[in-house]
Amino acid sequence: MSDDFSPHLLSPADDSLPPPTVPVTVRRVRQGRPLDHADSDQVATETPVALVFNGISHAVMMATPADLEAFALGFALSEGLLLSPAECHGIDVIANAQGVEVQLEVAAAAEMRLKDQRRTLAGRTGCGLCGIDSLTRLDLLPERLSPPAWLAALPPATVLKAFTQMPALQPLNALTGAHHAAGWATREGELLQVMEDVGRHNALDKLLGSRVQARLPMDDGFIVMSSRASYELVRKCARLGVPLLATISAPTSLAVDIARQAGLQLYGFCRGEQAVRYVP
Amino acid sequence: MSDDFSPHLLSPADDSLPPPTVPVTVRRVRQGRPLDHADSDQVATETPVALVFNGISHAVMMATPADLEAFALGFALSEGLLLSPAECHGIDVIANAQGVEVQLEVAAAAEMRLKDQRRTLAGRTGCGLCGIDSLTRLDLLPERLSPPAWLAALPPATVLKAFTQMPALQPLNALTGAHHAAGWATREGELLQVMEDVGRHNALDKLLGSRVQARLPMDDGFIVMSSRASYELVRKCARLGVPLLATISAPTSLAVDIARQAGLQLYGFCRGEQAVRYVP
Repeated sequence: MSDDFSPHLLSPADDSLPPPTVPVTVRRVRQGRPLDHADSDQVATETPVALVFNGISHAVMMATPADLEAFALGFALSEGLLLSPAECHGIDVIANAQGVEVQLEVAAAAEMRLKDQRRTLAGRTGCGLCGIDSLTRLDLLPERLSPPAWLAALPPATVLKAFTQMPALQPLNALTGAHHAAGWATREGELLQVMEDVGRHNALDKLLGSRVQARLPMDDGFIVMSSRASYELVRKCARLGVPLLATISAPTSLAVDIARQAGLQLYGFCRGEQAVRYVP
Repeated sequence: MSDDFSPHLLSPADDSLPPPTVPVTVRRVRQGRPLDHADSDQVATETPVALVFNGISHAVMMATPADLEAFALGFALSEGLLLSPAECHGIDVIANAQGVEVQLEVAAAAEMRLKDQRRTLAGRTGCGLCGIDSLTRLDLLPERLSPPAWLAALPPATVLKAFTQMPALQPLNALTGAHHAAGWATREGELLQVMEDVGRHNALDKLLGSRVQARLPMDDGFIVMSSRASYELVRKCARLGVPLLATISAPTSLAVDIARQAGLQLYGFCRGEQAVRYVP
């Protein structure tokens, strides 16, 4: 292997995206001992995806290289960078040797807002909080949702029913064991669509963006996820008007707080016929 | 203030930090139906932690509010913000109503480096890649490790032995099911120390920082983690000279690439007597 950059990211001349999984050579261990022969396994491709607004690079996320238009639109809306889908005039996805650039053409008002935001930022930012570099910039106060009438009567069994349909719609995770999933379920618990990504936030943004692209409403069903519920997931759902989020694993304290403030129903530990609902 | 790094850094009174878990009111669902009575459960506290270098706020991470001196020191070193522990002259942890500030007093050379880095940054940054806002800023080329002599002969069973000792050292996760763990094992597979955090990167930084504080070597053992192996975890281990990383879940493609380039041994899916070793 040369010192050159990852072969997984060297894109072919046709600008096509890298595949979502790649084969790697492995040595399996059984009964505590390595098998005699090398084997092959699929791992999740983790591609740097830069989001560029009117030519200005805004953020880079490590993501599964698929559904990137939906991802970019969902991210821009769920992070409050765009106030409405109408502010997005076009999205181009361009693969290069370093990764993928998603170029969004946005309305002048949105560009002004982004530039103002950039000017007021003091400097660089770490992981975990998009665009935040000091505590005073935290935005943990979500809008209060107007819960749809059907929500109060939704039985937990309907939420759990949606989870039983997830594995069949997680083809990438079946290959790699490394992909998170975000799915949209009807109020009857029918799982209509699942998006997969190496990042749970990305999976959610892809799902949200995809529904926005298809002009589907956000308050006539709920979202199920294969992950824990961190506060960002609840914040993103609240911003787009999703009334219920249910996850397979645990929520964090801020996720519970934000769900309570937003009036968003939050379920955790959705497994089989069991779950935990976090009481507002 | 001495130029020498002191492992005995100032600590706040523990009671000034939020507790690592908090009780919430829940309604449990069994056989698909909510139980009649409300119940209480513990969720992981997710606290905004700002890292401030010589008065300049650099990044905010959501973290478990414990071991924050170790966290800050580990983060600064594993992200390459400090080139050596000696560049850190002191760490103060200050809790306020918005979250926690960790104030690092760093050497003039480190401050210059941070300021230069901030000046060259075009703007704000998203999650997933610390301080990166465009693809040209990616740093995915790790230093080549000098693997210790004992590493080549390390049996997989020794790696798996360390995992069997993890649950007993994960008290927070036992309460919440939401905490990741990073542990240090000797080359004999004895698990000496485990750090827990809501974020897997934070758990690793706490472990690395704790070993730096105690002036312990990084090449006489290995690290086990309860999570997937993302590229950042491998990158952080490589930067501090850790020769082997083993995780319970899957690695991503970039994690495999970076491990290969660094000459770091990578195991995934470490479960019971089974594991997968990613062949260089």
